[in-house]
Amino acid sequence: MWGGRFEEGPSQVMEKINASIDFDQNLYAQDIAGSKAHCAMLMQQHIIGDDDGNAILKGLDTIKQEIEAGSFNFDRSLEDIHMNIEARLTALIGDAAGRLHTARSRNDQVATDFKIWVRDAIDDLDTTIQALQRVLIDIADSHTETILPGMTHLQLAQPISLGHHMLAYVEMFGRDRSRLADCRKRLNKCPLGSGALAGTAFPIDRKATAKDLGFDGPSVNSLDSVSDRDFAIEFLSVGSLLAVHLSRMAEEIVLWCTVQFGFVRLSDSFSTGSSMMPQKRNPDAAELVRGKTGRVFGALNTMLVTLKGLPLAYSKDMQEDKEPVFDAAKTLKVCLLAMQGMLEGATFNTEAMKAAAEQGYVTATDFADWLVRDKGIPFREAHHIAGQLVKRAETNNCRLDQLSLDEIKSVAPQATDEVYSILSVESSVNSRISEGGTSPVNVKQAVAEARRNYLK
Amino acid sequence: MWGGRFEEGPSQVMEKINASIDFDQNLYAQDIAGSKAHCAMLMQQHIIGDDDGNAILKGLDTIKQEIEAGSFNFDRSLEDIHMNIEARLTALIGDAAGRLHTARSRNDQVATDFKIWVRDAIDDLDTTIQALQRVLIDIADSHTETILPGMTHLQLAQPISLGHHMLAYVEMFGRDRSRLADCRKRLNKCPLGSGALAGTAFPIDRKATAKDLGFDGPSVNSLDSVSDRDFAIEFLSVGSLLAVHLSRMAEEIVLWCTVQFGFVRLSDSFSTGSSMMPQKRNPDAAELVRGKTGRVFGALNTMLVTLKGLPLAYSKDMQEDKEPVFDAAKTLKVCLLAMQGMLEGATFNTEAMKAAAEQGYVTATDFADWLVRDKGIPFREAHHIAGQLVKRAETNNCRLDQLSLDEIKSVAPQATDEVYSILSVESSVNSRISEGGTSPVNVKQAVAEARRNYLK
Amino acid sequence: MWGGRFEEGPSQVMEKINASIDFDQNLYAQDIAGSKAHCAMLMQQHIIGDDDGNAILKGLDTIKQEIEAGSFNFDRSLEDIHMNIEARLTALIGDAAGRLHTARSRNDQVATDFKIWVRDAIDDLDTTIQALQRVLIDIADSHTETILPGMTHLQLAQPISLGHHMLAYVEMFGRDRSRLADCRKRLNKCPLGSGALAGTAFPIDRKATAKDLGFDGPSVNSLDSVSDRDFAIEFLSVGSLLAVHLSRMAEEIVLWCTVQFGFVRLSDSFSTGSSMMPQKRNPDAAELVRGKTGRVFGALNTMLVTLKGLPLAYSKDMQEDKEPVFDAAKTLKVCLLAMQGMLEGATFNTEAMKAAAEQGYVTATDFADWLVRDKGIPFREAHHIAGQLVKRAETNNCRLDQLSLDEIKSVAPQATDEVYSILSVESSVNSRISEGGTSPVNVKQAVAEARRNYLK
Amino acid sequence: MWGGRFEEGPSQVMEKINASIDFDQNLYAQDIAGSKAHCAMLMQQHIIGDDDGNAILKGLDTIKQEIEAGSFNFDRSLEDIHMNIEARLTALIGDAAGRLHTARSRNDQVATDFKIWVRDAIDDLDTTIQALQRVLIDIADSHTETILPGMTHLQLAQPISLGHHMLAYVEMFGRDRSRLADCRKRLNKCPLGSGALAGTAFPIDRKATAKDLGFDGPSVNSLDSVSDRDFAIEFLSVGSLLAVHLSRMAEEIVLWCTVQFGFVRLSDSFSTGSSMMPQKRNPDAAELVRGKTGRVFGALNTMLVTLKGLPLAYSKDMQEDKEPVFDAAKTLKVCLLAMQGMLEGATFNTEAMKAAAEQGYVTATDFADWLVRDKGIPFREAHHIAGQLVKRAETNNCRLDQLSLDEIKSVAPQATDEVYSILSVESSVNSRISEGGTSPVNVKQAVAEARRNYLK
Repeated sequence: MWGGRFEEGPSQVMEKINASIDFDQNLYAQDIAGSKAHCAMLMQQHIIGDDDGNAILKGLDTIKQEIEAGSFNFDRSLEDIHMNIEARLTALIGDAAGRLHTARSRNDQVATDFKIWVRDAIDDLDTTIQALQRVLIDIADSHTETILPGMTHLQLAQPISLGHHMLAYVEMFGRDRSRLADCRKRLNKCPLGSGALAGTAFPIDRKATAKDLGFDGPSVNSLDSVSDRDFAIEFLSVGSLLAVHLSRMAEEIVLWCTVQFGFVRLSDSFSTGSSMMPQKRNPDAAELVRGKTGRVFGALNTMLVTLKGLPLAYSKDMQEDKEPVFDAAKTLKVCLLAMQGMLEGATFNTEAMKAAAEQGYVTATDFADWLVRDKGIPFREAHHIAGQLVKRAETNNCRLDQLSLDEIKSVAPQATDEVYSILSVESSVNSRISEGGTSPVNVKQAVAEARRNYLK
Repeated sequence: MWGGRFEEGPSQVMEKINASIDFDQNLYAQDIAGSKAHCAMLMQQHIIGDDDGNAILKGLDTIKQEIEAGSFNFDRSLEDIHMNIEARLTALIGDAAGRLHTARSRNDQVATDFKIWVRDAIDDLDTTIQALQRVLIDIADSHTETILPGMTHLQLAQPISLGHHMLAYVEMFGRDRSRLADCRKRLNKCPLGSGALAGTAFPIDRKATAKDLGFDGPSVNSLDSVSDRDFAIEFLSVGSLLAVHLSRMAEEIVLWCTVQFGFVRLSDSFSTGSSMMPQKRNPDAAELVRGKTGRVFGALNTMLVTLKGLPLAYSKDMQEDKEPVFDAAKTLKVCLLAMQGMLEGATFNTEAMKAAAEQGYVTATDFADWLVRDKGIPFREAHHIAGQLVKRAETNNCRLDQLSLDEIKSVAPQATDEVYSILSVESSVNSRISEGGTSPVNVKQAVAEARRNYLK
Repeated sequence: MWGGRFEEGPSQVMEKINASIDFDQNLYAQDIAGSKAHCAMLMQQHIIGDDDGNAILKGLDTIKQEIEAGSFNFDRSLEDIHMNIEARLTALIGDAAGRLHTARSRNDQVATDFKIWVRDAIDDLDTTIQALQRVLIDIADSHTETILPGMTHLQLAQPISLGHHMLAYVEMFGRDRSRLADCRKRLNKCPLGSGALAGTAFPIDRKATAKDLGFDGPSVNSLDSVSDRDFAIEFLSVGSLLAVHLSRMAEEIVLWCTVQFGFVRLSDSFSTGSSMMPQKRNPDAAELVRGKTGRVFGALNTMLVTLKGLPLAYSKDMQEDKEPVFDAAKTLKVCLLAMQGMLEGATFNTEAMKAAAEQGYVTATDFADWLVRDKGIPFREAHHIAGQLVKRAETNNCRLDQLSLDEIKSVAPQATDEVYSILSVESSVNSRISEGGTSPVNVKQAVAEARRNYLK
Repeated sequence: MWGGRFEEGPSQVMEKINASIDFDQNLYAQDIAGSKAHCAMLMQQHIIGDDDGNAILKGLDTIKQEIEAGSFNFDRSLEDIHMNIEARLTALIGDAAGRLHTARSRNDQVATDFKIWVRDAIDDLDTTIQALQRVLIDIADSHTETILPGMTHLQLAQPISLGHHMLAYVEMFGRDRSRLADCRKRLNKCPLGSGALAGTAFPIDRKATAKDLGFDGPSVNSLDSVSDRDFAIEFLSVGSLLAVHLSRMAEEIVLWCTVQFGFVRLSDSFSTGSSMMPQKRNPDAAELVRGKTGRVFGALNTMLVTLKGLPLAYSKDMQEDKEPVFDAAKTLKVCLLAMQGMLEGATFNTEAMKAAAEQGYVTATDFADWLVRDKGIPFREAHHIAGQLVKRAETNNCRLDQLSLDEIKSVAPQATDEVYSILSVESSVNSRISEGGTSPVNVKQAVAEARRNYLK
């Protein structure tokens, strides 16, 4: 494979550590597309003749069919997908196959293949995220007025709309899609034609191959082009943030499925039981989505570590770039689909949510704000008074709106009957009409906005 | 601090683990700017009176001066920068200070402060990277025709231009700046006015505060706004890639400074000696730049782990967001400056580079390409013939262009005298005129292009 | 500092990136102890005279006092703690100070200092973990018969003893201590006397300095000795697992503090309020313990990345070894203390626990086991029958032991009245008497065993 | 599978995210061994009858044969290896199969299986590391007197013995083995019999199963037993340090293979060529060993992240524990074998090493030490004088021992002819006879010691 200079073939261990065909066969479609574009350009530039070129193109099509039909025989001694395809091409069309690698190196070839793969993965993830956003927006639409307790520190904080809660995730996923789009745009420069690292003396047309393969143009510097894996790391960074968002939502589903919260019930088709405990109904899918976060972070860490301190241009360490990316893309896809499936089949227990919102003095802030707004008391003082009110309710073991007016007046002499209109969770939610706030009016608008922004 | 409900103060350990003032005092300028914008808006909306408002604004200015003069007394029992400033404001202007926190929570306050800090850090890094690009472009400009051996696998590959090598890093840093810009754009939505998590019932004007603080507008969803730390993680992701690039360049400097390579000599002011070995001349700065890579990756990892699985909205875990970001920003800054300093004072040994380029048969590819181009031999076959030529030169212990024509013909009967014009490193470099290639003509154009793109 | 060969001092940036005095002053006590041991050995071996040696020893004592009194002036231009001390020693005793560094390099010096520091940190953590174990064992002792729902997937699984639950953590922390002890034993070989990397020609006595400094003996290979940072990474690995355990316990405290669970109430001194919401009572310390997990993982990752791919022997990258270790040790200490403090002041709501245990059909397994044991039904079939029983109870919206015998018989014809004795949570817990099981009898024994193993 | 309570089967996505059979079939041998031990104990304790028990044992043997013969049909809808085996057992022996899971849960079952797997992996790695140590010791034995330049900061530092260099790695790998042994000892407590989390009411004999499966005894606490994955994380921590050591050695091989260093030449069977450049001879295996470091760190990070913050006892997240461990074990194995293969076939160029050692004034420390030892000059002054000597040699562009005595005296008036015996690299190496030093005498002893310690 490496010409006439080696006397001995690789040892068995060498073959084992070196061969990438077990995973880079994943790139077959991208590799064949790249080779076809390269071949067409070589023909157009009269670097190879039309007969040879057409034989190559036809041969590559045949190979693609063979791979997709499962009849292609991948051979580990041929190391990687590039050599496997070239060897098969030689078997199919003879010596003309040897002309395909003119003005090309595996270095620019694999960089091109891998970029196209990542670009495809980005497009696929974007669609998959959008589908999840659609489910979230639909739930939000149905639940603008459903009240649940907003939490900070997992303690009851203020009542909010379930629709508002769902839309928070829609925003997170919107940023993920925006990051994917940026990553896609930045990677979309074609390395093909950079050769091993220095460019080539053949009169190639890089703009032509770039265009043919859907790139915005050729990459700028040949040395950088073959040693750059920024796009893979950026993809994994973006993916790690996406995993963070999924893990947060998964954590909430696990919590909401507990007997203690009981806010949601997953469908049978997204629940599991136990081999020992007959009563179990486990939110395995949510736990797995949460658990797989580590895997995506691990992939990012792997790539960063691998690239650290590598001198230019290509080092073989960079062969370790593919598996983490393949695994992370697949992991994120299945997590998104599982999350979508869980939510589609989920039943929200709005009564439990409402009941929970009414616990825990969640309208104490409303009371303080009312003292500020209507009674002109500085916020810090009002906050202090409201704290005392909570203490009194705690002592009485009742809700804030179950305190008598006298009791309220004993800590806030300014209080009038009107205060009870402040202390209900509905009134609290309805009052939050500041931009981005949780009032049903706002949430309805936000749903419409989200549809416009994300689902067009 | 938390109103009238707590009977006991925090334990000493609690104070120690809980207080963030040791590091978040770093946010003082951003916090004061945020409070001033909030206060101005409250006045404009008639939520607080002008007298109180003006007293607050003046008090905040005083506090800023005190901090910058070093006369401000930070108090750990006041937990964080926000409470330290509010307490001082109360001391300065009395009860009116208690009106500042109207329609605000520490949750939206700290999110706003931190976003502004990260935005400032982005702007500062962008300038610092640009300064390094300038040095690299200047070196490239002076060395378009300096030849060194391009390497893959740290083995001699093909001769390249030193200018081309420098410009590879200019491209990497260009992508880093582009990522910083995307991150900046995405973060530039103002969370102020989101309250604790639900928005507020006060008639605030979020557009006004957003504009005042240089944001493109208010953030969309109040729940998301207070629990979002995407911007910090994205900043650390971008920073990690920047660290990767710096580490690669640092590795090359360490290599090039060895006696064995001898491609570069750092100035005394960027070299160190040894406490024991009098002859030492160590490239410590380059090693530290390489070594600090781990620190930036560590910061990214820290943040990702911290956010993983947190339910909405704010959890106290998120207080751990600042130190990694502060440390990474500082680390990247000093690494960039050190790299700039090293390169500015570096002396390139162009003779050593040239001599190295002439070792190791680096024009074997040129020979193979010549057989393809001029003799019509398929590339695979030409590659094989060139391999045999290398083997012969190895046996003779000479360079390729030191083989006699007869020797060359014995492996490549097609060869003529003309072949010697192919085998020099100058001819090799000059021939690489494909787009993005290493020929001096290309590199000159690339320098001009880089100036246009990056230094305007 | 580096003798007569450098013409120019370091640039300002160089000084900034290079100086370690800001953090390695932390090593002052270890450095002085190491220098005293080295000096005593040099005297004993007649490598330096007694007058010089005694002056050095006295000077070092003075310096230690100055540092501890806060009167020592650390100078960044002197780079590190070693040079700061040596410079001060010269100021105090003159030229004799120059003899201290005989037969020593900063490479073996810093390796020795750092090992002693890590050893001290291990001892300190061991004591701190033990104190936490004591609190856990005491709680277990008081709650062998307190029943709460054991959970898997955060779903109710089987009733367990609170004591048993606490002892699970005692085991985890026991393994942590065992790992710390292993780490300590492995690191306890003294690198002093390894020189820069090759050893020395001076007739030193490494066994003497090793013994003097509490090591088990000298390290084996001088090259390895100065480039080894295994002990620091192992310390961080052990610390990361400790952080995992703390994070799991912290997560449970956060959960148990929710209104929904209500299993525990933290003392005021370990709770915090909100700047906006007067009713809040947040378990900040538990959240911070959970949040700081990322920081410890980050430190480990940092060190691993830093060491990756460094050629022998010392590279300056290794200066980045200290900050992560210092930070992780400090972080783990405060987390352990906070956890101890939280638990010491915590009030367990045993009624809420019991009530929760009675929800959710947690004795379904007991029913299945009873069918197997008393009725000879294969487990798989019994598991199926118990599943149907649960379904029936779900339909009836009642507990298992609230089903009538007829209802039970309709799915399990073999059932008799005796079944009700199986279905209570007490009977379930009491029945788990297998070794390591949760029955109060077992837990009592386990408490005694834990005291013996961990608190002697 | 989960009894009578679920009406709907899992959705396709659920099956995809949930099924672990694709990777946990790796545990088949451990699972069958565990089931056989469990079954034998159930028989012995008369929990199941002998006929059923013997049928189960025979059936399990059949299944093992089927799996090893490749005739077993793994079914994804059966989720995992445990259920696949149980289902096949039922097909083989009928209802009796349903008795095997008596007094057992998948939670204790999988913890047991996985512990045995990790224990086996430890034993295998230990043997593989030892084989590498043997190669290193043999090389050291042949090269006690081979001189190469010891480096710090990749700058020439002091001449050392190649044998000494090799033994430095033997020490590192010795610590790795010691850590593996500690990990093995700590994990070797059997979780079987812990049930789902609470133990069981069946009269099982945990000591019997523990002994049968090669454990030192049963684990202590049932709740801890099913939620503990310390052993996996500790294994990955130990593996990460092993990867660090391998990466450092790999980096050196890459460096030593460069034309610039030329210290070593790998065999053809561990070198690769280029698809484009006919002259290439790349140390791919060393680069891959270095590159795979990231993968092992990534696995460790993945596991730490996955376990972070999980409440007790088992959560499904923990299913993500296996793939990182499987991958890391396989990766480390192939890296060790590749390193062994590379070194076995490597040719050391001792002349190039010697020549390199003679460059760069590496005996300047010897000169300074000589001034201290023979002339009574304080080390700091001697270091300064030696620095000036180096400067003079630099100016003259000669080696230290090529300076005339007059030149030497001009910086060190005390110098005599004797000084030349100090300045050769042989004399330098021979003089380093301090314990652990690099002199050939020491290295010979160290080789013998290493054989005793590591190869028995």
